[in-house]
Amino acid sequence: MQYQQILDTIKAESLIRSNTGEVASYIPELAKIDPDKFGMHLYCINSGHYGFGNEDERFSIQSISKVFSLTLAMTLLEDELFERVDVEPSGDPFNSLIQLEYENGIPRNPFINAGALVIADILVSAIENPKQKLLDFTRKITGNPTIDINPKVYDSEKKHSHRNASLLNLMKSFGNIKNDIETVLDLYIYQCSIEMSCRELATAFMIYANAGNTLSDNIQVISPRKIKRINAIMQTCGFYDEAGEFTFRVGLPGKSGVGGGIASIHPGQYAVTVWSPPLNVKGNSELGMYALERLTTLTGFSIF
Amino acid sequence: MQYQQILDTIKAESLIRSNTGEVASYIPELAKIDPDKFGMHLYCINSGHYGFGNEDERFSIQSISKVFSLTLAMTLLEDELFERVDVEPSGDPFNSLIQLEYENGIPRNPFINAGALVIADILVSAIENPKQKLLDFTRKITGNPTIDINPKVYDSEKKHSHRNASLLNLMKSFGNIKNDIETVLDLYIYQCSIEMSCRELATAFMIYANAGNTLSDNIQVISPRKIKRINAIMQTCGFYDEAGEFTFRVGLPGKSGVGGGIASIHPGQYAVTVWSPPLNVKGNSELGMYALERLTTLTGFSIF
Amino acid sequence: MQYQQILDTIKAESLIRSNTGEVASYIPELAKIDPDKFGMHLYCINSGHYGFGNEDERFSIQSISKVFSLTLAMTLLEDELFERVDVEPSGDPFNSLIQLEYENGIPRNPFINAGALVIADILVSAIENPKQKLLDFTRKITGNPTIDINPKVYDSEKKHSHRNASLLNLMKSFGNIKNDIETVLDLYIYQCSIEMSCRELATAFMIYANAGNTLSDNIQVISPRKIKRINAIMQTCGFYDEAGEFTFRVGLPGKSGVGGGIASIHPGQYAVTVWSPPLNVKGNSELGMYALERLTTLTGFSIF
Amino acid sequence: MQYQQILDTIKAESLIRSNTGEVASYIPELAKIDPDKFGMHLYCINSGHYGFGNEDERFSIQSISKVFSLTLAMTLLEDELFERVDVEPSGDPFNSLIQLEYENGIPRNPFINAGALVIADILVSAIENPKQKLLDFTRKITGNPTIDINPKVYDSEKKHSHRNASLLNLMKSFGNIKNDIETVLDLYIYQCSIEMSCRELATAFMIYANAGNTLSDNIQVISPRKIKRINAIMQTCGFYDEAGEFTFRVGLPGKSGVGGGIASIHPGQYAVTVWSPPLNVKGNSELGMYALERLTTLTGFSIF
Repeated sequence: MQYQQILDTIKAESLIRSNTGEVASYIPELAKIDPDKFGMHLYCINSGHYGFGNEDERFSIQSISKVFSLTLAMTLLEDELFERVDVEPSGDPFNSLIQLEYENGIPRNPFINAGALVIADILVSAIENPKQKLLDFTRKITGNPTIDINPKVYDSEKKHSHRNASLLNLMKSFGNIKNDIETVLDLYIYQCSIEMSCRELATAFMIYANAGNTLSDNIQVISPRKIKRINAIMQTCGFYDEAGEFTFRVGLPGKSGVGGGIASIHPGQYAVTVWSPPLNVKGNSELGMYALERLTTLTGFSIF
Repeated sequence: MQYQQILDTIKAESLIRSNTGEVASYIPELAKIDPDKFGMHLYCINSGHYGFGNEDERFSIQSISKVFSLTLAMTLLEDELFERVDVEPSGDPFNSLIQLEYENGIPRNPFINAGALVIADILVSAIENPKQKLLDFTRKITGNPTIDINPKVYDSEKKHSHRNASLLNLMKSFGNIKNDIETVLDLYIYQCSIEMSCRELATAFMIYANAGNTLSDNIQVISPRKIKRINAIMQTCGFYDEAGEFTFRVGLPGKSGVGGGIASIHPGQYAVTVWSPPLNVKGNSELGMYALERLTTLTGFSIF
Repeated sequence: MQYQQILDTIKAESLIRSNTGEVASYIPELAKIDPDKFGMHLYCINSGHYGFGNEDERFSIQSISKVFSLTLAMTLLEDELFERVDVEPSGDPFNSLIQLEYENGIPRNPFINAGALVIADILVSAIENPKQKLLDFTRKITGNPTIDINPKVYDSEKKHSHRNASLLNLMKSFGNIKNDIETVLDLYIYQCSIEMSCRELATAFMIYANAGNTLSDNIQVISPRKIKRINAIMQTCGFYDEAGEFTFRVGLPGKSGVGGGIASIHPGQYAVTVWSPPLNVKGNSELGMYALERLTTLTGFSIF
Repeated sequence: MQYQQILDTIKAESLIRSNTGEVASYIPELAKIDPDKFGMHLYCINSGHYGFGNEDERFSIQSISKVFSLTLAMTLLEDELFERVDVEPSGDPFNSLIQLEYENGIPRNPFINAGALVIADILVSAIENPKQKLLDFTRKITGNPTIDINPKVYDSEKKHSHRNASLLNLMKSFGNIKNDIETVLDLYIYQCSIEMSCRELATAFMIYANAGNTLSDNIQVISPRKIKRINAIMQTCGFYDEAGEFTFRVGLPGKSGVGGGIASIHPGQYAVTVWSPPLNVKGNSELGMYALERLTTLTGFSIF
């Protein structure tokens, strides 16, 4: 089958599926999203763009932004970064304080909230105006200067950030947060409120499929060695407590967000994104998981 | 560099490295192994065999056997197998009862001890004489009818199996063990006491690199779809509490054993095995981890 | 109010109360008990016996036997006993393996299952024919040679002991069980299947209220110092995960069993027992807890 | 022996004991205390005051203040208070976030930090100027208007309160903190920095031994029923992870603080306090524990 045929098949199959997920409700602004939004976009190194549905409508990328902040931090720092955050999968839910307490304030990986907060702290230490820099970085790898945050989501998350403030205070007590808690929390909330469409997100994720280079203008954003490491972390840690399931069923590195988006890549082949707001009990887009499983099944190949 | 050059480089680098690991001592028979044993074998789909050191000396494969028992079980059963064992990485040490208790007797994955014991229980239910059948299966994929267990290791483990008996009793209390505990434990200990050399193990692991086919006589042992799933589980769960680190540093699916062996594969490319008895604090061969990291660094490619 | 008036009041109040508890069902033989059984017996040092309801019907004392086995062990050993079992309350349910694993096989206290199994192991090491000896000890402090086990309960528990076998194997792997697992488990199940009435149990518990002496024939069974220590453990650990609640509401040392019995004492004053099979979610007799709370409220005094 | 003789004996025994504890160092101001300070004061309902050593030197009462804040809250509220904080012992260290996360933001008891912070939140909601009110309450039960905080300790703790801020944020995310985090934290730090001598503390604690009445001027501060409940909580939860050990060895309700103080009572008999800064590994005064154990051993009676 051709890629567009495969995507059409996935769309058709998905629309007749009963979806039992629920839209994230812990942030009021996210709870307002139409649960029927559904879009997918596939960007192949060799053959360009394919897609369907709401592929051009922007949504809140939420935790997918953790990949961008990690990437920016890795362009600035070498492996010393991994003395402050580990690369092991976490068996616990995404905002758990438990492992953090047992492991003396060193988060399990950069994609659980605690780890992303440490990355935010590293960015605050390393660069001036990290909010603007991170937004600029996202615009650069997307090749689109109009990417921006959603100010309503930003304000809404500001009011519901006690859990992350708890994580920051705990890590600060262990000495693993260096800057002012409010500043670090502000950067983290800012990055989570960035909005992108499936097409934009697939374009940005092309650097992970293309050895660190943007495809359109061929800029080397980060080294191939570092891209491999980021992909490895996405593989084992990209889906909270369901990373094994995603690896098992889909077989590609990827990262999900509670806005209902998933971005995934096949190194050397393509970047793919899907958006459907209802989440399964593990916090990942239910239809998005299904669509990506069908993609690797119908194409017949994954990284394994 | 050519493959043999790469292996020679790894050997040279490894020999001047100070090794801080310790040989597994919880089973007396394993504690007797010469810690200086060191061998590596690379078996490429396109270009055959490369190796060095004690590559032809047999050692106790221990937990690497869990890959073979899972594979045999998956040839007999479809996805209902995964109702009794999950595919998620475990943040806890390999014999932990904690997650098992929280999760009502469903092990996190088939490569922690609890999960491998459930697989053993499944084999006891599904086939007659499972010990012989599992040995035959191992001989078949290796193409070598002389593969066998080490009876001293088998006897030694029999006397030190209270931890596994504890896991079995706990899972039986949750209804997730169907057969007699002694029978299941016996099969498990039997499989762990199989001995193979690096060369033999690389030959056996070729089915995971070669879409389910043996390379020498091209027998389809298991479907490509199932092989992908086993590889995915090896990627996220193959190294106890260090699966993320292995994925991060090496970037290949693999499985380690406390005998000091590691078997790993690059799908479509090669199977590779290394043996060095001293283990790091996470229970994986210290030098083996290093050798495989150097392999993907020097060849310049992993699955990511 | 006089004691008998107080008991009559408790009976009247209890009978009009809606009871939401459920009879223990994990052992089939226990599940057969009539949930409406209800008896209470108060044995005062100064004024003798008071009671009502099914106070003379024997029931399975279950975990209340842990007090007798600990007492027998403490008559045989000094404080070295507490190197193998701690005296701290456990925040986890009564058969939890979690704390045991974190704390290297040393149970939190002698009244959780793991701790009682260590005490059973100590008795197996210390005396010949410990089953008979423990029964004899119970008969002696009760002054009643007809006390015996219920063989149906004994047989029924034998078939449902995987959880305790799991605990024993785990502790054996840590070196904290010295004898054969089957032998220790057999003693434990035997002691749990002892049957006594409220009157008999209050008579036996008089040694804890009366500084180690039986009241009828004034035999010093154990020293006052040791009785104080047992009472202290009953206070902090006698009610699984509800020890604080019992101390808070009732204010007396005591021990409950899943058969629906509770035995409690006021040092220097009385022993009191109550039996009502339906258990609350924490595994303690719901009506029994209420009756004892009313007793200390209506008498106006507890140990605090 | 007479009480003063007993105290003299304890003093003599204590001075020749080797003390392996360490002065609390997590707050710089506390770390400056002379480790050789040692005082004890016994205040008997029937026979007045006894003491020795630095019994009249004020020290930081720290967590002992949790008893006063709970008492004040219980004078203002009925049992609805215990919907927001439980009364069960905690198996974990005093500032653990783990149980709090498992138990949805309801602290195990009012004497772990999380529970004391909920009590502080309750006081902030219930009264105006809670800092002054709590200080006034302490002065009233002590009969001494000069009791005050140590401003250096107060300032020092302000700078080292990330762990408590983490607890507050976590509970706020569960809805169990109603007021501004800074305000609640400020009250908590304020109460911990109150300074009292052993004599003053024993005088204040007399209300717990004397059914809620001050002894000197016989003011009913709180009802006997509520005092019994506070004493019960002190018994099961007063010594962090060592409450069972204290109950076992000493057999009295009490509360310790990291400043090295312990206050304890025998209902109907006496209040007793001891101060020695070096703490054991569980965070309780090492010599204080010993002195109180000797007191109940030499007097020959405890509540059990």
